Amino acid sequence: MSDSARHGNPRPQGSRIDPYFDQYAQRARGMVASEIRALFAVTARPEIVSLAGGSPYVTALPLDVVGDMVGDLVAGQGSVALQYCTAQGDPGLREKICEVMSLEGIKAHPDDVVVTVGSQQALDLITRIFVDPGDVVLAEAPSYVGALGSFAAYQADVVHVQMDDDGLIPEALAETIQRLTSAGRTMKFLYTVPNYQNPAGVTLAAGRRHRILEICRAAGLLVIEDNPYGLLGFDGEPPRALRADDPDGVVYLGTFSKTFAPGVRVGWAAAPSAIRDKLVLAAESAVLCHSSFSQLAVREYLATQPWREQVKAFRELYRQRRDTMLDALSAQMPEGCRWTSPAGGFYVWLRLPDGINSKAMLPRAVSSRVAYVPGTGFYADGSGTDHVRLSYCFPEPDRIREGVRRLAQVIEAEIDLRATFGSVPSLGGPGSDTPGPGDL
Amino acid sequence: MSDSARHGNPRPQGSRIDPYFDQYAQRARGMVASEIRALFAVTARPEIVSLAGGSPYVTALPLDVVGDMVGDLVAGQGSVALQYCTAQGDPGLREKICEVMSLEGIKAHPDDVVVTVGSQQALDLITRIFVDPGDVVLAEAPSYVGALGSFAAYQADVVHVQMDDDGLIPEALAETIQRLTSAGRTMKFLYTVPNYQNPAGVTLAAGRRHRILEICRAAGLLVIEDNPYGLLGFDGEPPRALRADDPDGVVYLGTFSKTFAPGVRVGWAAAPSAIRDKLVLAAESAVLCHSSFSQLAVREYLATQPWREQVKAFRELYRQRRDTMLDALSAQMPEGCRWTSPAGGFYVWLRLPDGINSKAMLPRAVSSRVAYVPGTGFYADGSGTDHVRLSYCFPEPDRIREGVRRLAQVIEAEIDLRATFGSVPSLGGPGSDTPGPGDL
Repeated sequence: MSDSARHGNPRPQGSRIDPYFDQYAQRARGMVASEIRALFAVTARPEIVSLAGGSPYVTALPLDVVGDMVGDLVAGQGSVALQYCTAQGDPGLREKICEVMSLEGIKAHPDDVVVTVGSQQALDLITRIFVDPGDVVLAEAPSYVGALGSFAAYQADVVHVQMDDDGLIPEALAETIQRLTSAGRTMKFLYTVPNYQNPAGVTLAAGRRHRILEICRAAGLLVIEDNPYGLLGFDGEPPRALRADDPDGVVYLGTFSKTFAPGVRVGWAAAPSAIRDKLVLAAESAVLCHSSFSQLAVREYLATQPWREQVKAFRELYRQRRDTMLDALSAQMPEGCRWTSPAGGFYVWLRLPDGINSKAMLPRAVSSRVAYVPGTGFYADGSGTDHVRLSYCFPEPDRIREGVRRLAQVIEAEIDLRATFGSVPSLGGPGSDTPGPGDL
Repeated sequence: MSDSARHGNPRPQGSRIDPYFDQYAQRARGMVASEIRALFAVTARPEIVSLAGGSPYVTALPLDVVGDMVGDLVAGQGSVALQYCTAQGDPGLREKICEVMSLEGIKAHPDDVVVTVGSQQALDLITRIFVDPGDVVLAEAPSYVGALGSFAAYQADVVHVQMDDDGLIPEALAETIQRLTSAGRTMKFLYTVPNYQNPAGVTLAAGRRHRILEICRAAGLLVIEDNPYGLLGFDGEPPRALRADDPDGVVYLGTFSKTFAPGVRVGWAAAPSAIRDKLVLAAESAVLCHSSFSQLAVREYLATQPWREQVKAFRELYRQRRDTMLDALSAQMPEGCRWTSPAGGFYVWLRLPDGINSKAMLPRAVSSRVAYVPGTGFYADGSGTDHVRLSYCFPEPDRIREGVRRLAQVIEAEIDLRATFGSVPSLGGPGSDTPGPGDL
């Protein structure tokens, strides 16, 4: 309650623009929309090639078949599918989730699993459970924008740890933990996307995985393994999950958003039992329970449809698009650009030539009918102006080629500008660079 | 990070039962399952008549027709229904939501609406936005258990305001605000369920509504109007919403859980624009976006099905069950019991004879094959031992009669026990009395 209210004055308090301004919680002060958000609204226009969005290509699903399946589900099991569920989630779905995780070497029991509203909710609940304001969360540099959003919502202090083309660097992790420990900081967990990382597209090398686990174990540091893309690798078997080798020290987050469909919002956490208990209670206070309708649709899909074949089809589709993008980048990008070569997933991480600012360039790119996500969205510390994230998951190959061509021209124009004026103006103003859900 | 970890010792820290015990956030300390939760698991057994659960009777829906509808939705619009949505929610659904709210006198624009994962998520997000630890939230005495769970998750200090058979008492509200203001407390909002309240079954009298709004306006206090049952009144027109008369001072929460189906988890908040903006950002960090699959199912249901007729059918069904329960209570309950007569919704609030403890009685009731929710779940301050919540929404009328008969016998046995021993032993131990989602 504001001072004016305390003294009995009527509304408005706060500012004229927002009468509730001085009533928000501390944690809400940072909830300000970024100015690039408005730009992303524009990128839905058909004339713009969006290499920004992380939307899976759900049109590749057999929609008629899935339609029949959900129709039968409601007609035959509607009294369950349309009813409340437990906060932990449907037991049959949790069994199926354990089968899915076994493909990555995880031995889990359905009791270990909590179904969540996408893995985003799992991130939110994990942070809710562990993070007091000012606590440190370790995350890769760069890291997933949606996770950074959750960490910010609970006022975590994100400290980034260096990556290279083989993922998180163990020595950098050890050094960071050492430094923060010496400084008396309270670290709550390491957040990592080990496979085909969003946004960097890199994968944690097999040889580094045990070392990362050892370092965290020695430091008493929980690992949050976020693995949306693990089954979407383009070569060989899925990488072995971190949780497969340390079920007591790792909370594994999974999702059906990329292997089936994001529109059902079905993700999960597999966690040590004490943490699982807290997650269930936290989920209950957040949403009571997840949608039975969505959960049972996924359960039926896994039980009755050839989902492994469908994942293979998705892999092939995304591999072609990855190849298209890498070929186009090689053919078109001006000197001074560098980019990663993802072995799976949705994203290429492009480094711009020195002195080009990805955030400042975005409005000019959108004018040239191509969109991307500026690298700044993937850092909590203001880094990333020299990078952009490009996604190849949604646009058709022809559009990918055209988008890269347009982007190359924009970058060339920036290089010319820089050569002429010495620097390029930047977008200012407050707010996170978080784009909307379709852009993640 | 624990001290042991800080000094480089390996896990386990914390206790042997929960190695993460000393790493949780402050807010998670209170997340402990109640001992009555285990009892509720038992109440799903068919031999037990549960008057505990708040599950709507979804079997009354034309499941074949709804099945065809969702099947067509996925087959025909799957590329949207299975894709990400915006965090604010589907625009077409938000239009329909405004039509629904107009039945209660609300004039809203689709821009004012944020679709949430049930109205529970709206409660969670509102609390997230406004409440710092220790802030006061005003709520009716008793109040909805799920709301108390959200308030507790953000460490709010809930102060209950007295109700009577006409709902919240304006003088009690004014007096409470005055007292807290004098004590220098920070109040963030009044939370109220004005219609067919959960758990008390009472409705805020029309003559009190303006007075409640005036008191809050004068105090600069936001009103959260939670209205799941507004369209499920048994007599006449739906009560006029508080928001209809003060759109700038009221956040309205609605849901399709009771008028359509809880399994889709589609609720909403209609809020002043500044709060709406914060809600969208908070929703994004909590779940990215709600399920398109669920949202579009509800949108199609509202657009293509005779939903007003279905609500009327639900009303008739629940009215019969309410009548059955009230008749059975009159016929069976021992002297000293009193109960409310709800004019809509799902619940009767039963006061036990002096000296009978509703929580202590529960295990004995379950042994006698009847379940209810002890009144303690609906207070943040330990009150409620003298009350139980009885729901008539889910069981068939014969089962309602049988359940009330069994409960009456249990209460009579308690009265005998009390007469013999002078008091009745109570369940002890920590934890909230919050039952699971089906019990709300």
